[in-house]
Amino acid sequence: MAKQHLEPTDPAATAGSPQAPCVTGGDALASYLRAQATEFLRALRLHRETGAGAHVTGTQGAAARGTGAHAAPDGAAPDGPVDAARALRRAARRLSGTLHTFQPLLDTEWAESMRPELAWLSGTLALEHAYASRLERLLQALHRLSGTALLPSQQQAGRTTPTVSAPLAPTATRPSPTDRGSLTVGAAKAGALLDRQLTLARTRAHSTALQALGSSRFHAVADKVALLASEVPLKDTTVSTTDLRPLAAAARDRLTDAVAALPLVTAGNPYNAQALIHGLSPDPAPHPQDTQWHQVRLLLRLHRYALEVLSGGYADETDGGTDVRLLAAGEALDRHRDASEAAAAAAQAARTPRIAPATAYALGVLHADQRHEVEAARYAFQHSWRKEPIRLP
Amino acid sequence: MAKQHLEPTDPAATAGSPQAPCVTGGDALASYLRAQATEFLRALRLHRETGAGAHVTGTQGAAARGTGAHAAPDGAAPDGPVDAARALRRAARRLSGTLHTFQPLLDTEWAESMRPELAWLSGTLALEHAYASRLERLLQALHRLSGTALLPSQQQAGRTTPTVSAPLAPTATRPSPTDRGSLTVGAAKAGALLDRQLTLARTRAHSTALQALGSSRFHAVADKVALLASEVPLKDTTVSTTDLRPLAAAARDRLTDAVAALPLVTAGNPYNAQALIHGLSPDPAPHPQDTQWHQVRLLLRLHRYALEVLSGGYADETDGGTDVRLLAAGEALDRHRDASEAAAAAAQAARTPRIAPATAYALGVLHADQRHEVEAARYAFQHSWRKEPIRLP
Repeated sequence: MAKQHLEPTDPAATAGSPQAPCVTGGDALASYLRAQATEFLRALRLHRETGAGAHVTGTQGAAARGTGAHAAPDGAAPDGPVDAARALRRAARRLSGTLHTFQPLLDTEWAESMRPELAWLSGTLALEHAYASRLERLLQALHRLSGTALLPSQQQAGRTTPTVSAPLAPTATRPSPTDRGSLTVGAAKAGALLDRQLTLARTRAHSTALQALGSSRFHAVADKVALLASEVPLKDTTVSTTDLRPLAAAARDRLTDAVAALPLVTAGNPYNAQALIHGLSPDPAPHPQDTQWHQVRLLLRLHRYALEVLSGGYADETDGGTDVRLLAAGEALDRHRDASEAAAAAAQAARTPRIAPATAYALGVLHADQRHEVEAARYAFQHSWRKEPIRLP
Repeated sequence: MAKQHLEPTDPAATAGSPQAPCVTGGDALASYLRAQATEFLRALRLHRETGAGAHVTGTQGAAARGTGAHAAPDGAAPDGPVDAARALRRAARRLSGTLHTFQPLLDTEWAESMRPELAWLSGTLALEHAYASRLERLLQALHRLSGTALLPSQQQAGRTTPTVSAPLAPTATRPSPTDRGSLTVGAAKAGALLDRQLTLARTRAHSTALQALGSSRFHAVADKVALLASEVPLKDTTVSTTDLRPLAAAARDRLTDAVAALPLVTAGNPYNAQALIHGLSPDPAPHPQDTQWHQVRLLLRLHRYALEVLSGGYADETDGGTDVRLLAAGEALDRHRDASEAAAAAAQAARTPRIAPATAYALGVLHADQRHEVEAARYAFQHSWRKEPIRLP
């Protein structure tokens, strides 16, 4: 299958003549979908080959930490299944998002049956990673707040579940076991509590993901993706020359409309203290003010995928097909989401019955710290966004 | 006594010819000291006339709140003694600072005996106000974090102990008694705990201040200030024409040197997360990183007072004699000090034995919130400072 490296045309051309001769027709859409389907199948094969068993590091690590020993990683390359699961999620997200944006050009029944299945799959696969990186974020924050280095147990957690955005350097100095002593009691207990709760959640998510990958529901999805890799069910034969840009522009407009509704002036004013404004409200749910930012994050992703379809780029996030500033804005929104969920996890842990006041105090500091991370991420987003004359498809 | 509204001369004149004909000689120093001494005596008289008894609102307020009733203020104008005490502190600070900066021009023995007494007095008088405004800051933060309005008790506290920088509007809507119910249990308990602890500290500080004002030590200071109001003990007769600017420039240089040692690049980078970096360290003392900022605050005040001496302005902080941007920088450093001490008070309260976890959690959130206020104040300071080509005497 040939890659098509089509550069997006001049924005003015789109605005002035939407029916202009088409350089980014339905063929580009079909090519992108086939490529993502192929990537999905490749990742699935890799996942099966590296073995899902090596993936259960969450449980083993927790057991090892419980006895004070630090288990060596399995004989299998530890990142194999992690990378494979990540690639699988990545392809599923792109397929699902592309089906959403360009649905009018695709066989309606097929697209409508396919999208929820892909969303289910990427959502199920994402949970384990989310719990692991949330724990890592919180433990790192606790240690920053305590002025100490990482504990060995966190280093292990970091090694077996690296996050994409902030991987732990494998060359980081390994702290001595006595470092735990330099933590205050509250911070150490808070860390242990979060470790327990989030490792449990992660282990459960891992089991759920394994069950999902063995289910007949998953096999049905995989079969459909395998068909997609060879033939894309376009709506009709005219689609191969249909201009994709109006649909991509609609995705972009949904993004810019949602961004316009964000409180960007406030976000651009440092230390506006908005993110923590309900830090002590009785509502255990994530802050309602976060929702519109989470929504923009999803719309930004759809916009990026649409640009990938138009530019023919479909594999590497860092290639020239996607604007660097758009990536920066997306990373700020990822950080916003991660900090928002980490803050909620700290608040949730503080509701554990019978914890010591010092533990609760540390969790309060941690919650506020993560809410300020939320505020910082909003500041970073508006900074990236304002620098960017958003790229038109 | 005639005010001298001398504008500071061109900075280049000072730098180029320090022995230039003197428009700001020792006479200006004597005039400023006499004026501040007169202001000191006026404030002392006002304090005695309005009656120190009305000043004990801390104790009365706490008792009234304890029974759920909200006592009306005393028949006496409630702000009389507060204003008088503030004016007394203000004059004592200016006398002490001016003696420090211009000591080489003054009778050595007199100045050396006078300064520690003035510092003792202004320090002793400042404590009650500091506890009151710290409590108000913390309760306001708790209510901001809970998304609720002020409680009646805080409104009363705000009315009887207004802060200069952020007075509570007397027209603020009085919340209904049920507002306490909208607070989370933790925030309400944390507020009650802080109220108890800081009101007790304030009451003790008030007693100490009253004892100080009745002591023979104070009467000795007051006698010396009364003498100063009529005759300033200059070193010798040549001082009346000695150029004050080199000594003022030395005060300015001490300030600029101290500012140069501050981490202003970091402070100018929003959300640098430096202020909370030891938020969970076991050290109960104020963060060591704050010390150099507190020192700059004191040096900035000495610089401002020296400018007041040179410009002949000595009464109103908002007159043209002091640069507005210098005031903004000073207010940022006041906010830095206040937030730093409020954060320490929240951390201290969290060490109270047998508090509920929810209380400790709220205090943790509050501590982190105030440490971010510290960071915000540093950002504001560097912003004010960089805008300012510091005014040379």
